[in-house]
Amino acid sequence: MRLAVIPGDGIGPEVVAEALKVLGEVVPAAEITRYDLGAARWHATGELLPESVLGELRQHDAILLGAVGDPSVPSGILERGLLLRLRFELDHHVNLRPARLYPGVRSPIADPPEIDMVVVREGTEGLYAGNGGLLRKDTPHEIATEVSINTSFGVERVVRDAFARAANRPRKHLTLVHKTNVLTHAGSLWSRVVEEVSLQHPDVTVAYQHVDAATIHLVTDPARYDVIVTDNLFGDILTDLAAAVTGGIGLAASGNLDVTRRNPSMFEPVHGSAPDIAGQGIADPTAAVLSVALMLDHLGEHEPARRIEASVAFDLATRDHASPGATYAVGDRLAALVSSNVRTG
Amino acid sequence: MRLAVIPGDGIGPEVVAEALKVLGEVVPAAEITRYDLGAARWHATGELLPESVLGELRQHDAILLGAVGDPSVPSGILERGLLLRLRFELDHHVNLRPARLYPGVRSPIADPPEIDMVVVREGTEGLYAGNGGLLRKDTPHEIATEVSINTSFGVERVVRDAFARAANRPRKHLTLVHKTNVLTHAGSLWSRVVEEVSLQHPDVTVAYQHVDAATIHLVTDPARYDVIVTDNLFGDILTDLAAAVTGGIGLAASGNLDVTRRNPSMFEPVHGSAPDIAGQGIADPTAAVLSVALMLDHLGEHEPARRIEASVAFDLATRDHASPGATYAVGDRLAALVSSNVRTG
Ligand SMILES: CC(C)[C@H](C(=O)O)[C@@H](O)C(=O)O
Ligand SMILES: CC(C)[C@H](C(=O)O)[C@@H](O)C(=O)O
Repeated sequence: MRLAVIPGDGIGPEVVAEALKVLGEVVPAAEITRYDLGAARWHATGELLPESVLGELRQHDAILLGAVGDPSVPSGILERGLLLRLRFELDHHVNLRPARLYPGVRSPIADPPEIDMVVVREGTEGLYAGNGGLLRKDTPHEIATEVSINTSFGVERVVRDAFARAANRPRKHLTLVHKTNVLTHAGSLWSRVVEEVSLQHPDVTVAYQHVDAATIHLVTDPARYDVIVTDNLFGDILTDLAAAVTGGIGLAASGNLDVTRRNPSMFEPVHGSAPDIAGQGIADPTAAVLSVALMLDHLGEHEPARRIEASVAFDLATRDHASPGATYAVGDRLAALVSSNVRTG
Repeated sequence: MRLAVIPGDGIGPEVVAEALKVLGEVVPAAEITRYDLGAARWHATGELLPESVLGELRQHDAILLGAVGDPSVPSGILERGLLLRLRFELDHHVNLRPARLYPGVRSPIADPPEIDMVVVREGTEGLYAGNGGLLRKDTPHEIATEVSINTSFGVERVVRDAFARAANRPRKHLTLVHKTNVLTHAGSLWSRVVEEVSLQHPDVTVAYQHVDAATIHLVTDPARYDVIVTDNLFGDILTDLAAAVTGGIGLAASGNLDVTRRNPSMFEPVHGSAPDIAGQGIADPTAAVLSVALMLDHLGEHEPARRIEASVAFDLATRDHASPGATYAVGDRLAALVSSNVRTG
């Protein structure tokens, strides 16, 4: 297993260290190469993602990323030039974001039901395409545009993936989230594709919700969701909210998948670089550890993936949530659980 | 006071009847003209908003709208052709949506803090501009676009309004919500405008949040918000979530304002036509009644507006939330409270 690691900025390196500690327990032979992309490199050299580095990244089986972003860098530079560039160059069209309320974890919502959903967010189109511009900047007649681009090709592949995932889950339920009553063109394409693909999945029940209504139901009735499929921006919004409802982005993992496997997929916690707590050794590495489990799953290593997930579930059920411990201590605990499982399981 | 009323579809007519009952207690001389726009008229005549009706609407001091939308009408027809057309033709650039957790109302979030915020949503631009299209429809090469249009003119007027509102509130705090790290063009315009206008409001503190982070904080720390200013789509999403957190869209009022007063402003509950419960007489008319209070405020009738709000607050603090009563009963209760206030207050 050849793994590229981009620790990145802020708490990124801190949580990645623990994720690799846990990985070491299940795949000790993983070959790891680190890439120092992020704010520091940009400050030092002006480089975001040199072609040569991108070429090297392509030679790996997967990429583990900590977090990208720093207050010293103007908004958008690292996001568009590094994180989104990776997602687009490596054709990460399926942005997979499970949201599960683990036993023992406190939800901000009162009397939460069982929540176990996965959001399949399109990753290479929509408003993230970077298509837009400024006209007459800094004049009273300035116009700024942002164009959401949705293609039959791009929508169909992510919808197919979402249906396949729904078909493999016990509830076999899929919800398309969009805003078809306002975004009538993109909404029409998304609706038609979902309808067409659903014909090949008579076992999967299909629902539709407007994005505004979906945010309501995520806090009042999250149990209704099994698989959600949605576009890039709506997926960004819904997955942060779903993470909040299931205990916070400190626990939320994600995979940026090229499901064709032509390019390495990239795994990262949903949280950002959290500059406010960086360097203190208090960030929760759980989301990064769960991202490793998603990665192993994607690489066909299902047994170690299950073992990591079970260890996280056990730790979340038993930890003192008021003081879960330092970053390294959580990592130590999870590593020990994973390795004890090796011996006993 | 010349008032145009569009009861609309589903529960729209039911809640509007109660709102007018309450209005009758405070402004008995209001002159009311009804317009039968909505699903039924579209089915019967194909008309959505005839020019002649639009011309008549313009002659009024304000418009009260129930709700628009019906499952028998393809998605987008009534929304784009009637509701959004009204907002755009009448230049409703400030979409005002207060979210307050009234004493006695149950929030879906555990141990909710005091919540009293107002979202100032831009109403005439962004992704709602209706700019986009389909290319190569129904082929494997189909492309659907949606263009968010943001102008210096449009952003500045809503940002100015939001700052003025913030300056008039005790906490004097304004949060810009956007996604500047991805939507860099529109984000740049919004950020620059907020920065510029803030120079004229040194008394107002300013914060920025990405829309995804804002959905997290709306459920984990909603008390941090005072005034939020944001674009049309983000405002749509955040106000449904803010309504959910403060007890549901059954209580959420909104005003679509032309703050220049060249056109009549339009007031409507945030909820939709709710076809699932229409005709049963069980819809909660509170949001429509609160929309009347917003309308009176806008028309300078502050005392009656306060009286309606106080009556709603009293009713919410004392009602049996498990069975708040039939639509007409809630209306009767609120009308009685408002009129008793007249005598005693
Ligand atoms: C950092 C940002 C560009 C990114 C996104 O919007 O996709 C983040 O919010 C996420 O969800 O991974
Ligand atoms: C019905 C729909 C077009 C509308 C909107 O998106 O603005 C509604 O959701 C609202 O918030 O008033």
